[in-house]
Amino acid sequence: MTTGKMFTEKEAELLEEFILNRRDVRGNRFLDKAVEDEILERLIFVALNAPSVGFSQPWEFVIVKDPVIKEQIKQTFNEENNKASACFNDEKQQEYIRLKLEGIIEAPVNIAVFYKPSTGPVLGQTSMEEVGLYSVVCAIQNMWLMARALNIGMGWVSILDPEKVKKILHAPDSNKLVAYLCIGYVDKFSERPELEILHWEKRKEKEAVVFFDRYK
Amino acid sequence: MTTGKMFTEKEAELLEEFILNRRDVRGNRFLDKAVEDEILERLIFVALNAPSVGFSQPWEFVIVKDPVIKEQIKQTFNEENNKASACFNDEKQQEYIRLKLEGIIEAPVNIAVFYKPSTGPVLGQTSMEEVGLYSVVCAIQNMWLMARALNIGMGWVSILDPEKVKKILHAPDSNKLVAYLCIGYVDKFSERPELEILHWEKRKEKEAVVFFDRYK
Repeated sequence: MTTGKMFTEKEAELLEEFILNRRDVRGNRFLDKAVEDEILERLIFVALNAPSVGFSQPWEFVIVKDPVIKEQIKQTFNEENNKASACFNDEKQQEYIRLKLEGIIEAPVNIAVFYKPSTGPVLGQTSMEEVGLYSVVCAIQNMWLMARALNIGMGWVSILDPEKVKKILHAPDSNKLVAYLCIGYVDKFSERPELEILHWEKRKEKEAVVFFDRYK
Repeated sequence: MTTGKMFTEKEAELLEEFILNRRDVRGNRFLDKAVEDEILERLIFVALNAPSVGFSQPWEFVIVKDPVIKEQIKQTFNEENNKASACFNDEKQQEYIRLKLEGIIEAPVNIAVFYKPSTGPVLGQTSMEEVGLYSVVCAIQNMWLMARALNIGMGWVSILDPEKVKKILHAPDSNKLVAYLCIGYVDKFSERPELEILHWEKRKEKEAVVFFDRYK
């Protein structure tokens, strides 16, 4: 017997549905339709209820709607994306250039998510400093699933100069940018990840990534 | 109109329930009861369906049940935990020492989760290298929520020397340990996070961590 709320098999299957239907959404899918503040409140609420090392809650969120700020962020995306395309060769580069990889302008709401380091020692963070960042990522994954459950699209933009983003948003020096999210209603949730459909990368087999007791 | 699966408000509320009821579980809560392989399959399944930068799926999982290996991992926990207690002063140190912070031995299953860097350039990872690690964290948060939905406890142990864990598990040099998870049935899911109940840290107010358009 377990004390505490017990979920049913049918409920657990619904969680699988949220997880399987979550997508990274870019500018070609966002609709020109405002996102209600109540939706944003619910996304922040699940973020604030994410796990965090030593209950440190080391997250900060900047909700961006100002079109001038969005244009500035888009500028650093453009610079970094031009550099990025040079990393790929020949056909892959041509394919890369054709991809729409962000929705900064098209999404009515952007949220920059920062890690704010604690000033003192944090329980659980004394041997692996980076777990503070991981708490922030857990909060983001909660937001992503909740957005999907609310039939709202979310995309994570990582092709940015984090120092430029910090400057644009007047972020404290000690904060670290973890993610820049684009949020909005969409015309479509694709059935599978776009990069899988386009054969950019193949889906890995479970047998290739699961080991028992130790690597051989 | 949106194409793709649409969820109802009632379904979205269930996701909030999973998120609010998820707990970090330690050795004082795990039951001496085997976890079925089907449960582990379902945890791995949701991990493999997490978002990953450039669809790189940069994760590897080592499912540990061998008591000898668990004892070796516990040894590095003990060493790091002794060091950690010295980081806290006076009363806080006494409180720290009394806390049970892992369930390595008590949990019937441990899962070490690694980041395996790609050999070539990864779409979306060219400006912020660390987002590869964040993909692995998204997979872990999926597992944590799924474990809770299946009424299974999970605890994340970060008070470990990651290099020692890699050596014990014969992990490739280039892999990075992201998390060491303890998984099992529990006697109780606590109503609130343990560190909140014990007043180790206070819950932050939303107003303190949410900003609009930019930091002032």
